[in-house]
Amino acid sequence: MNMLYRTGRVVLVGAGPGDPDLLTVKAHRLLQQADVVFHDHLSGRQMLALCRPDALLVDVGKLPGGRVRQEDINEALVAAAQSNALIVRLKGGDPFVFGRGGEEAIHLRQAGIEVEIVPGVSSALAGPALASIPVTHRGVSTHVSFVTGFAAADPDGLADTWRHLAAAGGTLVVLMGMTRVDAITATLLQAGLRGDTPVAAIHAASTPNQRVATGELAHLPSLVAANGFANHTLLVIGEVVSLREQIDADFFSTIAGLAG
Amino acid sequence: MNMLYRTGRVVLVGAGPGDPDLLTVKAHRLLQQADVVFHDHLSGRQMLALCRPDALLVDVGKLPGGRVRQEDINEALVAAAQSNALIVRLKGGDPFVFGRGGEEAIHLRQAGIEVEIVPGVSSALAGPALASIPVTHRGVSTHVSFVTGFAAADPDGLADTWRHLAAAGGTLVVLMGMTRVDAITATLLQAGLRGDTPVAAIHAASTPNQRVATGELAHLPSLVAANGFANHTLLVIGEVVSLREQIDADFFSTIAGLAG
Repeated sequence: MNMLYRTGRVVLVGAGPGDPDLLTVKAHRLLQQADVVFHDHLSGRQMLALCRPDALLVDVGKLPGGRVRQEDINEALVAAAQSNALIVRLKGGDPFVFGRGGEEAIHLRQAGIEVEIVPGVSSALAGPALASIPVTHRGVSTHVSFVTGFAAADPDGLADTWRHLAAAGGTLVVLMGMTRVDAITATLLQAGLRGDTPVAAIHAASTPNQRVATGELAHLPSLVAANGFANHTLLVIGEVVSLREQIDADFFSTIAGLAG
Repeated sequence: MNMLYRTGRVVLVGAGPGDPDLLTVKAHRLLQQADVVFHDHLSGRQMLALCRPDALLVDVGKLPGGRVRQEDINEALVAAAQSNALIVRLKGGDPFVFGRGGEEAIHLRQAGIEVEIVPGVSSALAGPALASIPVTHRGVSTHVSFVTGFAAADPDGLADTWRHLAAAGGTLVVLMGMTRVDAITATLLQAGLRGDTPVAAIHAASTPNQRVATGELAHLPSLVAANGFANHTLLVIGEVVSLREQIDADFFSTIAGLAG
């Protein structure tokens, strides 16, 4: 790599949960300034409409090679920094929460490129909040854990992780859990969580399509199936879910709507 | 309470970790529009400077009665909603992460007042991110737990919680842990975490006073003491801390600075 000329810098920017209003002021400004913006298919049009008319927008879901490989994204970021001053890598939620932001940052640093991180509103927190669920609450939950559903079905000891998280007794927020909701439910029940532990499934948090369903852990798979939730759904498991009916003015109408 | 006239609405707004640039676009706009803003002593002047010149700013640290009681804040919010259209309750980080936002929301709803939640960037995530520490990382940590230090020294079984969180093996972010750093360290070591588990202490994340110190769990109390960290410091415990040196360009200069 030719390091004789000054390369640009790459900013890993948290895009928040989806609503452009939940971008940070800094993210908003960087989107307006960037020469190149790498985004994924989750980035809304309203968000990308903030970019300069002459900015290059790169959908990382459409990089050459079909299925996106992290290596390809890493290389494309490095290449962009060779000939542009400011590259924004827009990442859903917060760049360092299940976003592979760390991998991208390490790769860029190893290539000698300046990297900056702009934290964002994580959907893992915003989702419950916008569903009127406080993830911690005095006397109810002293801690909250974020975990990916991908970890649930791994036979090599990860069940141990879930067993301890269940036994720890706080709030559990599961991201990317939809394809393994059966395994997640079974693991948590085996770990000792009660079948009537309150659960919420939150789909498309913060977007106009946001929908929330609540129920009990034992029936979580059917709750998710009955509502047709697939991707972009996070699960909240724990007693805090029951606080929702005290906070959400629309709680009863929501329930009615889901039943209808 | 007289419910014959229309009362105002209260918006619980996450202020982010401190840097006004990490306010959300929505929080920024609400601060400009609010009739009344309830804030605490952590809210920076730059943030409050966004408010209307005629807005009433209430420092909840200075409500009558000396030491702030949550009940007083709740009552003051209700009273403000009786005679104002838009009340912003500005809360550090995210309103539903260790912020008693749930309690305020429930109290307001019970008083018949409209409540809205605007999620913010939690310092529990922004702190590590701005210290170049990804709280999750493929192959290193599949989950992250946020816990308050207040829970550490409780004799009534909370040690169990910490034991399970330690055994779960992910990243642990401890908020408000400074007064109990000895108990936290002892509990985690007793729970089986290795003495050389990487740890970071992050002071005043995102502000001009941000400082970061890293070391090993066994020496966490002396690390904190040697750097003079008191309030507004969060702890990150786990293998992800060791990724910092691969991400942070200023890592070595920071270390040198701390040693000097």
